[in-house]
Amino acid sequence: MAVVVVERILDAEPDFLVDNGADLIAGTIARGGGRVTAATEETTSGANRLRGELEGRIPFPVVVINDSPLKQLIENQYGIGPAVLDGFNRATNTVVAAKTFVVFGYGTCGRSLAKVLRNLGAVVTVVEIDPVRALEAAYDGMRVMHIEPALEEADGLFTVTGRPGIVRREHFPLLKDGALLGNVGHFGNEIDVAALEELAVERRELRDHVVEYLLPGGSRVRLLARGEMLNLSAANGHPIEVMDLGFALQAHSIRALARDPAAFVHGAQPVPAAINRAIGAEMLRTLSTTRLAPLPQ
Amino acid sequence: MAVVVVERILDAEPDFLVDNGADLIAGTIARGGGRVTAATEETTSGANRLRGELEGRIPFPVVVINDSPLKQLIENQYGIGPAVLDGFNRATNTVVAAKTFVVFGYGTCGRSLAKVLRNLGAVVTVVEIDPVRALEAAYDGMRVMHIEPALEEADGLFTVTGRPGIVRREHFPLLKDGALLGNVGHFGNEIDVAALEELAVERRELRDHVVEYLLPGGSRVRLLARGEMLNLSAANGHPIEVMDLGFALQAHSIRALARDPAAFVHGAQPVPAAINRAIGAEMLRTLSTTRLAPLPQ
Amino acid sequence: MAVVVVERILDAEPDFLVDNGADLIAGTIARGGGRVTAATEETTSGANRLRGELEGRIPFPVVVINDSPLKQLIENQYGIGPAVLDGFNRATNTVVAAKTFVVFGYGTCGRSLAKVLRNLGAVVTVVEIDPVRALEAAYDGMRVMHIEPALEEADGLFTVTGRPGIVRREHFPLLKDGALLGNVGHFGNEIDVAALEELAVERRELRDHVVEYLLPGGSRVRLLARGEMLNLSAANGHPIEVMDLGFALQAHSIRALARDPAAFVHGAQPVPAAINRAIGAEMLRTLSTTRLAPLPQ
Amino acid sequence: MAVVVVERILDAEPDFLVDNGADLIAGTIARGGGRVTAATEETTSGANRLRGELEGRIPFPVVVINDSPLKQLIENQYGIGPAVLDGFNRATNTVVAAKTFVVFGYGTCGRSLAKVLRNLGAVVTVVEIDPVRALEAAYDGMRVMHIEPALEEADGLFTVTGRPGIVRREHFPLLKDGALLGNVGHFGNEIDVAALEELAVERRELRDHVVEYLLPGGSRVRLLARGEMLNLSAANGHPIEVMDLGFALQAHSIRALARDPAAFVHGAQPVPAAINRAIGAEMLRTLSTTRLAPLPQ
Repeated sequence: MAVVVVERILDAEPDFLVDNGADLIAGTIARGGGRVTAATEETTSGANRLRGELEGRIPFPVVVINDSPLKQLIENQYGIGPAVLDGFNRATNTVVAAKTFVVFGYGTCGRSLAKVLRNLGAVVTVVEIDPVRALEAAYDGMRVMHIEPALEEADGLFTVTGRPGIVRREHFPLLKDGALLGNVGHFGNEIDVAALEELAVERRELRDHVVEYLLPGGSRVRLLARGEMLNLSAANGHPIEVMDLGFALQAHSIRALARDPAAFVHGAQPVPAAINRAIGAEMLRTLSTTRLAPLPQ
Repeated sequence: MAVVVVERILDAEPDFLVDNGADLIAGTIARGGGRVTAATEETTSGANRLRGELEGRIPFPVVVINDSPLKQLIENQYGIGPAVLDGFNRATNTVVAAKTFVVFGYGTCGRSLAKVLRNLGAVVTVVEIDPVRALEAAYDGMRVMHIEPALEEADGLFTVTGRPGIVRREHFPLLKDGALLGNVGHFGNEIDVAALEELAVERRELRDHVVEYLLPGGSRVRLLARGEMLNLSAANGHPIEVMDLGFALQAHSIRALARDPAAFVHGAQPVPAAINRAIGAEMLRTLSTTRLAPLPQ
Repeated sequence: MAVVVVERILDAEPDFLVDNGADLIAGTIARGGGRVTAATEETTSGANRLRGELEGRIPFPVVVINDSPLKQLIENQYGIGPAVLDGFNRATNTVVAAKTFVVFGYGTCGRSLAKVLRNLGAVVTVVEIDPVRALEAAYDGMRVMHIEPALEEADGLFTVTGRPGIVRREHFPLLKDGALLGNVGHFGNEIDVAALEELAVERRELRDHVVEYLLPGGSRVRLLARGEMLNLSAANGHPIEVMDLGFALQAHSIRALARDPAAFVHGAQPVPAAINRAIGAEMLRTLSTTRLAPLPQ
Repeated sequence: MAVVVVERILDAEPDFLVDNGADLIAGTIARGGGRVTAATEETTSGANRLRGELEGRIPFPVVVINDSPLKQLIENQYGIGPAVLDGFNRATNTVVAAKTFVVFGYGTCGRSLAKVLRNLGAVVTVVEIDPVRALEAAYDGMRVMHIEPALEEADGLFTVTGRPGIVRREHFPLLKDGALLGNVGHFGNEIDVAALEELAVERRELRDHVVEYLLPGGSRVRLLARGEMLNLSAANGHPIEVMDLGFALQAHSIRALARDPAAFVHGAQPVPAAINRAIGAEMLRTLSTTRLAPLPQ
């Protein structure tokens, strides 16, 4: 958040903060606390600040939304795969079935995407350095490979590792001609786009969100959404359900913090289990799959 | 095709016709045949004219593209479901998993859509009057129901029957509040949109391709793409592979007709089996799933 | 059927025949027809006799059960895959997930098996000489290969082609050490077991239905159920539903033949569509997936 | 383990213990420790003793095998579902597709079973009291219901909760006529078999592992494997891969304990991460899905 915005918000002397990145909380601490009695923090990177540089200095409770198991479930396990598919469809208008895809990284997000692709009729290869996760991928019906042989036979590739520099300069010439290359990781640095730009002898925009690079050897690499998060760049971003859940967690947490501040400790802490259960039950009640029957309490 | 266009084309005295709806062929017959030595016809409705009113009067061979088993496979069995999903995603930005969908009609297209939805985590109910098809739906893991109880619990509904008047005036009040209603059938008459317009006490555009109707009872129906084909209206239409296949069938057929007209009878006939085999083998060769190995000949 | 049995049955002067292989029908014709007014024939090989050597000589109607689309659906499309899985589980007690299987032949039965294996988490390679079927396999998420490279990486292989001599002497040494090899085709001649016996330097029974052959090169081939139909040899054979359906088709057909013989022509003919529809509707009524709702008529 | 057996083993003065239920470890402590320098414990119930009554009194390191994430993955997440299916197939010889199943409990084991059934074409209803797990079931495409309505429409039901008294006296009369009822939980007390025996007016053995109870109202309940674990009672028990993994974890752990006892603390502790990684990588190397490529290190 721009510093000036943070300062203007804090000038209004809020009682509660709904923060995103911990800027408001850090600013409040810098000012000595003010009237703030409690806060929520949406992001993991904000939570890292609360548990790092700000640790022990926060004079009020902060509920970290992103830690909620519901958030993991709805956003990472079920939201990511379909959202990336949506971005892929719009950018390329090509069928997923009968293609070979490589997914880099088999954490919750990579698994979500790999399963969506496989369920639509693709052959999916997973590249994953942790052997336990790689074994999970194999039991989920994915092929597991080292990066080099995986590159050679892929029609499409997605980086979902959360680490920089996964697809690098030496990898581009190994790709099959016409391969589609996209990123799902939060930061746009998993594919080395700068190296690709440098390497290419020609560059042209094929469609919205698709740039084709001609390599010296004659093969073509088609980069999706400039290597930025495909689901956010080429589609609508998070589906409604994911946004709804985030707001529900915020609202329930703020209400609990306002009603009974004494039930919370100072500093960062997870969403109370009772709130996760209440929102889970509420979401169940909205589903038609469960409409014909009374639901778990 | 506009009559004037047809006439101007025929004035150019073509040797071959690549027709779509049989207008060029009918016009040629009306003119007594001209120089035309052979033709292809893309559509089923064109084929119906060739085998109906024009039967016995066609003085050259016509290869009907849509009869090809490859067309059935790639367009209907694999193309429709993903294309409708794409339209649904763009129009609604909502998750398919955990929802109940009703698919009307379990022909090749309805089955394609039902399987895509189920594979993404939906519960799918099929309404189908033919018991053998309905049994197939049940064995594919779909619930099978009469229309009325199916309507009550659906989050989303799609008509894929090829028949008019499937979702009618008496059905709208039975829908769950907020139900999403779309059509996949070729003609935009499977949902009685006029009746819905008449019935509604309020109408508002929620998003591109989503109009919400408020019914007298207080429930809301959300109509997608005005009841026109969702995949064509709200998405990119046929994916690249489907278009490619259609053009390949046209090109191969015209070449065969030009090279050896004596191998064909006059009037409508299917794509020769050798052409289906050749294009199938060619498509296989482009797939990475098969790249590591020589392919079937 | 043994000749003496056929003769003793015909000596009883039956009015109706429920035949299996057309022996009773052929015997009746040889005797000049007797009292027989109608018959059913269960098998395709029996139907081939009726439409071949006996064509034009059958003085009563014969309904061919195996032609029914219900039979195709329930027995081939849905029955085969799970039944082979059952035999495989019992014979080997090994997990399907994370393994590579090769399925030879992508007709209805091969597809049924390939889908069951893929749905349980296997990577499935299909070997199929017809390019249109091979393309269907690719769109169903199978890898498609020529036989040699497919052999090298398979943990398990199944022949489902209906043709003799698919896995031959030259193939055994190409198999991965420990590969499991089974047959699903009706005749036990798709794997050349005699050649394998000859080739092997050692043979031992590992478990019921599993014989291990040690090849000169040191690798081991594990043959399931001696190359006979795995579902019938190592499991319970057809599941209840398949048997039920066969008997229902017989009973309904005999009743219709008895009630209104004039509605049938002499010689072989398919099950009347009304009977398929009636049995389909009856099967639907027994399913819980459809129990909460009235069913298609 | 019988006390006399424990004593005789300890009389042999072992250096290492491979325990199952913590009897050997408890006996060793009672004897003052003896020569034992380290141990492994296979089970969760043994681990509970180590972390309960024996806490602080164990004079050597004990590695708890069951805590390994590999064990969770291979045994619970992938092993249970197929093994129960195997037992179900053998006991009933009936098709899974087109049936409605109820799974009680959506922990790792319940989810494993529910997914196998759904992937084979069943409609699956989950009964689960934790709303977050119930929501996960819904997003996996399961219907979620309270127990009573779920009972009414099920063709088959499985208890997988780890708690006693799930299907009780008052539930049996609610079941659909002919419903198949089995248990997967470790203890045979999730279905109240005694109450069913008492309630029934007639009892007959239909097949191996299937007993049919006729209830006063005229409906029949078919109990599988007397309510004991279906996968162990009616099938081969754990598949080879699960047994292999358990032995590999034991062997690697004992070797590490023997080589470098100083790397371990006294008392219960998880399998070292390096061992999980090493075995995971080893298992990957045996898979054909990964054979074409070098594997993750």
